[in-house]
This record gives sequence, structure tokens and C-alpha cells, in this order.
Amino acid sequence: MKLTPEEIARIISGELEQPKGAPAAGKIIITGAAGLKEASGTDVSYFSDSRFTGDLHKTKAGAVIISSGIPGFEKIKESIGVPLIKVKNALLSFTLILEILEKERSVRQEGVHKTAIVSKTAKLGSGVSVGAHCVVEENAFIGGGSVIFPQVYVGQNVKIGKNSKIYPQVVIRENVSIGENTIIHSGSVLGSDGFGYIKNGTLHKKIPQIGRIEVGDNVEIGANVAIDRATTGATVIGSGTKIDNLVHIAHNVRIGKNCLILGQVAVAGSSVLGDNVTLAGQSGVTDHANVGANVTVAGKSGVIGDIPDGQVVSGFPARPHRENMKTQAILHRLPDIIKSLKEKNK
Amino acid sequence: MKLTPEEIARIISGELEQPKGAPAAGKIIITGAAGLKEASGTDVSYFSDSRFTGDLHKTKAGAVIISSGIPGFEKIKESIGVPLIKVKNALLSFTLILEILEKERSVRQEGVHKTAIVSKTAKLGSGVSVGAHCVVEENAFIGGGSVIFPQVYVGQNVKIGKNSKIYPQVVIRENVSIGENTIIHSGSVLGSDGFGYIKNGTLHKKIPQIGRIEVGDNVEIGANVAIDRATTGATVIGSGTKIDNLVHIAHNVRIGKNCLILGQVAVAGSSVLGDNVTLAGQSGVTDHANVGANVTVAGKSGVIGDIPDGQVVSGFPARPHRENMKTQAILHRLPDIIKSLKEKNK
Amino acid sequence: MKLTPEEIARIISGELEQPKGAPAAGKIIITGAAGLKEASGTDVSYFSDSRFTGDLHKTKAGAVIISSGIPGFEKIKESIGVPLIKVKNALLSFTLILEILEKERSVRQEGVHKTAIVSKTAKLGSGVSVGAHCVVEENAFIGGGSVIFPQVYVGQNVKIGKNSKIYPQVVIRENVSIGENTIIHSGSVLGSDGFGYIKNGTLHKKIPQIGRIEVGDNVEIGANVAIDRATTGATVIGSGTKIDNLVHIAHNVRIGKNCLILGQVAVAGSSVLGDNVTLAGQSGVTDHANVGANVTVAGKSGVIGDIPDGQVVSGFPARPHRENMKTQAILHRLPDIIKSLKEKNK
Repeated sequence: MKLTPEEIARIISGELEQPKGAPAAGKIIITGAAGLKEASGTDVSYFSDSRFTGDLHKTKAGAVIISSGIPGFEKIKESIGVPLIKVKNALLSFTLILEILEKERSVRQEGVHKTAIVSKTAKLGSGVSVGAHCVVEENAFIGGGSVIFPQVYVGQNVKIGKNSKIYPQVVIRENVSIGENTIIHSGSVLGSDGFGYIKNGTLHKKIPQIGRIEVGDNVEIGANVAIDRATTGATVIGSGTKIDNLVHIAHNVRIGKNCLILGQVAVAGSSVLGDNVTLAGQSGVTDHANVGANVTVAGKSGVIGDIPDGQVVSGFPARPHRENMKTQAILHRLPDIIKSLKEKNK
Repeated sequence: MKLTPEEIARIISGELEQPKGAPAAGKIIITGAAGLKEASGTDVSYFSDSRFTGDLHKTKAGAVIISSGIPGFEKIKESIGVPLIKVKNALLSFTLILEILEKERSVRQEGVHKTAIVSKTAKLGSGVSVGAHCVVEENAFIGGGSVIFPQVYVGQNVKIGKNSKIYPQVVIRENVSIGENTIIHSGSVLGSDGFGYIKNGTLHKKIPQIGRIEVGDNVEIGANVAIDRATTGATVIGSGTKIDNLVHIAHNVRIGKNCLILGQVAVAGSSVLGDNVTLAGQSGVTDHANVGANVTVAGKSGVIGDIPDGQVVSGFPARPHRENMKTQAILHRLPDIIKSLKEKNK
Repeated sequence: MKLTPEEIARIISGELEQPKGAPAAGKIIITGAAGLKEASGTDVSYFSDSRFTGDLHKTKAGAVIISSGIPGFEKIKESIGVPLIKVKNALLSFTLILEILEKERSVRQEGVHKTAIVSKTAKLGSGVSVGAHCVVEENAFIGGGSVIFPQVYVGQNVKIGKNSKIYPQVVIRENVSIGENTIIHSGSVLGSDGFGYIKNGTLHKKIPQIGRIEVGDNVEIGANVAIDRATTGATVIGSGTKIDNLVHIAHNVRIGKNCLILGQVAVAGSSVLGDNVTLAGQSGVTDHANVGANVTVAGKSGVIGDIPDGQVVSGFPARPHRENMKTQAILHRLPDIIKSLKEKNK
């Protein structure tokens, strides 16, 4: 990428503004992007929150994309030392520039690497890339435009939709289906057996896990995630859902659309999440629970039963967040409260 | 699998019953298995809990295996619309059918794939399968009938017993021994160095970790688990123990037989677990703790010292579950209790 | 290794002592090392803590390295049944022996395995080992003496310093730099995309993650760790920092020098840790938090904001450990306290 601030303004439909003391936008060449603090003269940055006005004053960026309508901004505008590009939503426009930069870097050659072992019964769409040392088993299908990075395992009857990206060393075991435009990061495993046993005295007899996984479109799955196949039927990850690193999704879990599942979350067997659920970091959901649509579970919380639509819950066991906060507030003052009550009761 | 309900009844030693309104069992062909809700006409399902009577009435399964002696069942039996197969334990019998279905699918070719790199000093038993892009190092031994899926790493002096299954992209580093009929899921690492350092001022000097891991027979280890080798001696996973996904077992830990270690549990260095211990999801055990036989640790709990045999503990720090429940019960009413006490003391 | 106790004493600059009843040191051959309990007659062991005097009396070790100045030790010395080697710090000296044993075992052939796919534009220093089925992409650089075990992925523009060790099945994606003498254990992923989205109605639009990771010198990273690249700029792991298994480090996190990050810890996006911070097992740090130098966070705690230098914190939300302990102490007596207060207020 080599763009002047004017060219960037055109790309993001922004309005170029030239504060008095700023160098002329026409002479600046932007080749990268960075935060206000880290940016150098060849980077474009962005400003969308008045709390970071100090960083804006000090930035060494070549140009800054700003959100229009930031309170008090017009007053200080002229004192900024770099050309500004005004848009409605600076972060959204900045993201467009990041997309251009990303595309430049991530081109992979089409075709199957000579060291990849691809079954004769597997079918690859047009423009598919299969990297070195991959294994693609019988009857797998990989949709057009998808990129399978090196050292990936694609099991029997796996179906991967169009334009998906599977990063190095992902394992997708048999009978897992993955939608379009879906991204799976390295080290993740889809299709391990669910944790299912029948107690036989003190022994645990394995219940074979012969079900599937169905992952929707526009899903992103982080690094070193583990998603178990269903005992029978399917474990489901709804379209648009984003899963962070080191998450554990047990067998027969059904996750709705556009959920956010943050780092190190665990969802136990057969639980159902509605659409737009957020599970914050290190939280957990017990087995066979129904978590309603639009629920938010705070970090480190533990859901031990059903949660109605739209609730915000926290703590362990997870309760409505406001109630939990009241208890927490008292908890920290408890030594003093008890002391005072005891003195009065002497 | 292509079986009539009669044939299934024979296999599981069950008694075929034909409710009045159900189609004739002789004309039904079963090719799969599923839960009552998901089953189609070619699936066999099972019913062992009267709470799911509603699902039984609505099921589209081709046949249903039922546990004998479910209270009130004889009254409703004739209204069920599918042939029934009565057995002592429906889930156990259903599991036998799942085993037949699983066997059909998981056949792998014997022998060493041409891209696998197997040391000349490694020894493979009869019928062993070593998949594509595997690496098997010096003096490794793989027992007869074991299946090493593609892209697995088997280190020096590793010993794997008979009829074990190592799924794609497992790492078994040097001097780890694994028993018979043991299953290790993708992404798991056995034999990483324990987290051991000597403090030297502010620096941390590494203590070399030259010990082993000993995994027993009939163990199952989930996906993306990490088990560290011992500093010296061995980290031990007892026979019959089942470990879920993303579990962390530190160096020199000794886990007894037939334990259940659920998702995202951590057991810190040198701790010892007796037989038949259950550690529920996201719980943790501190280092150098002794957890007695038949102990159950509730989800998200943290064990910070020894626990006597047979106890059920919960909370952090983990205490006897009943005591912890009493505290929890008061905790949630605390704002009201304190308010009321304060008013009386005005 | 085949050494007499005298030779070991020479290597670790210790003083050989021969208790009356112990076999002659000159006739003992040491070939291994082990703890007091597990040691056999060909092992050297160590003793540095009087709590383990019982184990010392019963040990079957061939020789024991002991710390000088253990209270009361001179009295019992003559009753020990094995030759002793007195040094200042027995664990430190024992570690030297472990290092000798480790070196014997971990020799790998120099050079690039014939099945490794190494880009023509990659550069390897002298004595580098690249194992079977590795992939090394364009413009990667691997410093002299570094060992890349089999099945590792080294992405474009990755830089690995001298004498580092990358164990099997590590993924290092593009633009990640790693220092000298750094160790990364199997299954770890460096450079997955950070979890960054812009909310667009109910949809989550991906923010491309085009930043880097910078890992310092003498760092050790455990198994199945996930470290995300920065959105822009760099995620930083300071020199001398040690990270245990299954840890999650989010994008743009900056970790200081010589920190200890224990098993299953999570650090959320953009948080900053000072030098010498310890995060104990299963603890978490929220996003955009500043954790000061020399802070210790207890196991399972959750840091939800800034923590000043030097504090020890625990609980969730994490508070100064002493205060938290006071609350905890009352908590467990709460049912009794409340009961007693209620009776007085009848």
C-alpha cells in the first residue's frame, strides 16, 4: 500500500482537513496503519474517543482518521499537527484500511502442494489452496476460494464452504461441516469425541460419539479451541458467532447466531445458547442449561441453570448482575459491618 | 448397518414389543441411531427416563429401546407409535448399537503411510496403522492393533500399548508410556516440560525436566490437553481415568484409577489424586495436595490443601459442599439480613 | 552419565561426606537422578528442607546432595545410609546434574530434514536443525544453533534468535519475532488473530489483525498456549518471562520481564504487566488493565482494573490479599454469626 491522505480520504469517503500547523497532505505517503501512540509518519491512525485527545496531540502518524461529532473537537482541531480525515465512524473506516493491508500480505498460491495427501474421492472447488503436509481424507469437500494452510487435517466427509480460511495445524475430524467465509485458527480441534460414559461399578464405559458438528457461515474460531462432536445428531455453532482462544464446547451444545464466546470459556454438554449471547472470559455454562437470547454472562461467572432472554448475570452461581453487585458491595464491608453490629449487641 | 428392529432386539438381548398403532417392525430398516427428538424413521433411539415421555410420544424414530420398569410406562405403552425393544438398561443397549455404527466408520488401512517418517529402531506390532506425515522416533514401540492417525509425533523411547488410538496431531514426547486400549484426542501434548525454575535474584533458572509420563490402560484423554513430564520420576495417569478437553496436568502429578477430570481443570505440580475422584469443569487443585479416593470437587472450585476420602467439596477455597451451600444461601440474602439487623439496632 | 559420588562432588564443587553406615562412595556409580522417595542405587538425589528428613532416612539413592546449614542436621548425619555431598544450595547443584543428563538425551541432527519444506528465501544460521514435515515460509530467519523439531510451522518473516528450541507442532505465524535461548513447547500458537470486531447491528465485523508479536530472550512458553498478534503494533512477552500450559494472551498485551504466568491464566486485550509479575493458576486479567511491577495475583483471582506495584491480590474482583482473607474468614463463619446476631435482636 502506498497512498496519500487524499487517496485514503477517497477510499473511505472521508473529508480531508488540513490543520494550520500540519504538513501538507499531498506530500505524505502512507504505507501502514497503527494506533496513535505507536504510529510513525508513514502510518495512518484513528481517533474516535475524546479520552485519547492527549495521544492525538502527541501522535507521529502521517494522517489520522477522525469520527465527526466528537464533543469539543472543533475547538482543538487547528492545534493538531497532522492531516485529518473526517468520517462518520473512524474505527470502521480504519478497518477498511486494515483490510487493504491484510489482503496485500496474505496471498497464498492456488492449488494443492505436492506434499499434501488428498484423497482421490475428495472434491476441491476452484481456486482452493491446500498447503504443505495437509491431509484431506475421503469424500471431503472444500468450497471454491477456501485456503487450507499447511499441516491441516481434513477428515472423511468434511464439508468446508466457500472462501473459508483454515490456519496451520487445525484438525477437522470426520463428518464436520463448516460454512462459508469462516475462519479457524491454528491448533483448534473440531470433532473430538464428547465426554460420555456409562458408569459400570467404578468403571466408565465409553458411549461412542457418532454425531456431527455444524458450523455456520461467517464464524471465527480462535486458537486451540476444542469442539466435540455430538453423541448423535449435531453440535451446532450458529452463523456469525465468534469464539476466542482455548474455548471448550462440549458435545451436543447448540450455540445461536452472532454470539461472542471469549477466552477460556467452557460450555458443558447439551446446553443451548440463544442468539447474540456474550460469554465473557473464563466463564462457564453447566450442562443441559438454556441460556436465552441476548444474555450477557460476566467474566469468570458460572451459569448453573437456565437464564431468561436478555439478562445480564454474574458471579457463581450466576445471578442477575445488579443483585450480585449488591452482595459484592456488602461483602467487602462485611468485617466492619459485623464488628459494628456486634458492638451494638454487647 | 442395516437391521430390522427384530435383529436389533436379538443383538441386545431385548424383547420386541409392538404397540397397536405402531408400524410392523418387520418392515422397518434401521441404519442409524439418534436421540428421540432428532431421530428419523431409519434411526433407533432409546428411552430410559420418564421425564422424556413427551419426546417418546412425538419421536419419529424407527424403533425405540426402552428400559424395563419405568414407573407408569405400561399404561401408556399402547399409545406409542413405534416398535419398542425392552431391555434392562436402555442407554447401555443403545451404546452397543453406537459401537456397531462406530466400527463401520473408523476402519483405517493397516501399515505405515509412505510419507510417515519412522525410525529404523522403532518397533511396530502387527496390524498397526501409522498415518500420513507422522513422525516416529528412535526406539519407539507401538503395540499391535494400535492406530496412529496422520500428523502425530511419537518421540524417542515412547511405548504405546495394544489397540490404542492416537488421533491426528497429538504430540507424545520422549519417554512417555501409554497403556492398552487408550485413546488420545487431537491437539493433546504429553511430555512437555514441567514448570520448574529456581529463583536466582529476579531471574528464573530452568530446572531440567528429565522425568517420564506413565498413562495406564483404558484411559481417554480429550482434545488440547497438556500433561507435563515429571522433573524426575513419573507423572502418572491411572488406568480407567478419563480426561476431558483443555485440561492441564502439571509435573509429578499422580492421578488414581477411574477418575473423571472434566473440561479445563488444572492440577498443579506433585498433587496426588486417589481412585474414583471427580474434578468437575474449570476446577483446580493446588500443588502438593492430597485428594483422597472417591472425592468429588464441584465445578469452578479450587482445592488448596488435602481433602479426605469420600468428601464432596465446593467453592474457593474448596470446603465441604454442605457448609459451602449454607454460606452461599446466606450470601444471597445478605443485603436484606444486614438491612434488617441495622434497623433493629438503630 | 556414569559418575562416582566423588566425581559429582567435583562437578558441583561440593564436599563429600561419608556417614559411618553408608557404603563406600568410591564403589557407587551414578547414572541418573531422582527425588528421595523414587531414587534407586544408581540415582543421585537432593535434600534441602528438614521437613523431608524422613524421606532422607529411607532413601535408596546412591548419593544425596545436601544443603549446608540445615538446622539439626549435624546430629542426624551419621545415621544416614548413603554418601552425602554438601553444597550451599542442594537444589541448584542437583539442577546442574539434571542439565548433564538432559544434554545426553536431547541431541538432534543438524540440518534440514528431507521432508521439511523450507522456502528458498528463508535463512538458517549455522548448526540449525529443522525436523521432518516442518514448513518454513518466505523470508523466515532461524538463528544459529536453534532446533526446530518436527511438524513445526514457521510463517513468513518470522525471526527466531540463536539457540532457541521449538518443540513439535508449534505454530509461529507471520511477522512474529522470538529471541535467543527461548523454548516453545508443543501445541502452542503464536500469532493467531486477536479477538477484535466492530458491532454492526447484531453482526460482528472483523477488525483485521495486522500487528506482530515480539517474544524476548530466555522466555519459556508451555504447551497449548495461545498468543494473539496485535491489531497494529505488537503483543510483547518480555525477556526471562516463563509461561505455563494453556495460557491465553490476547492482542496488544505487553508482559514485562521475568514474569511467571501459570497454568490456564488469561490476560485480556491491551493489558500491561510490569516486570516480575506472578499470575497464579487459573487467574485472569481484564482488558486495558495496568498490573504494576512485582505484583502477585493469587490462583483463580480476577483482576478487573489497575493494580499498584508490589501488591499481592486475591479474589474476584481481586483486592489486597489481606483484606480478602479477612472477608473470607468471616464468610465461613457467617451462618453462625448471623444466627447469633438474630437471636440477640429477637
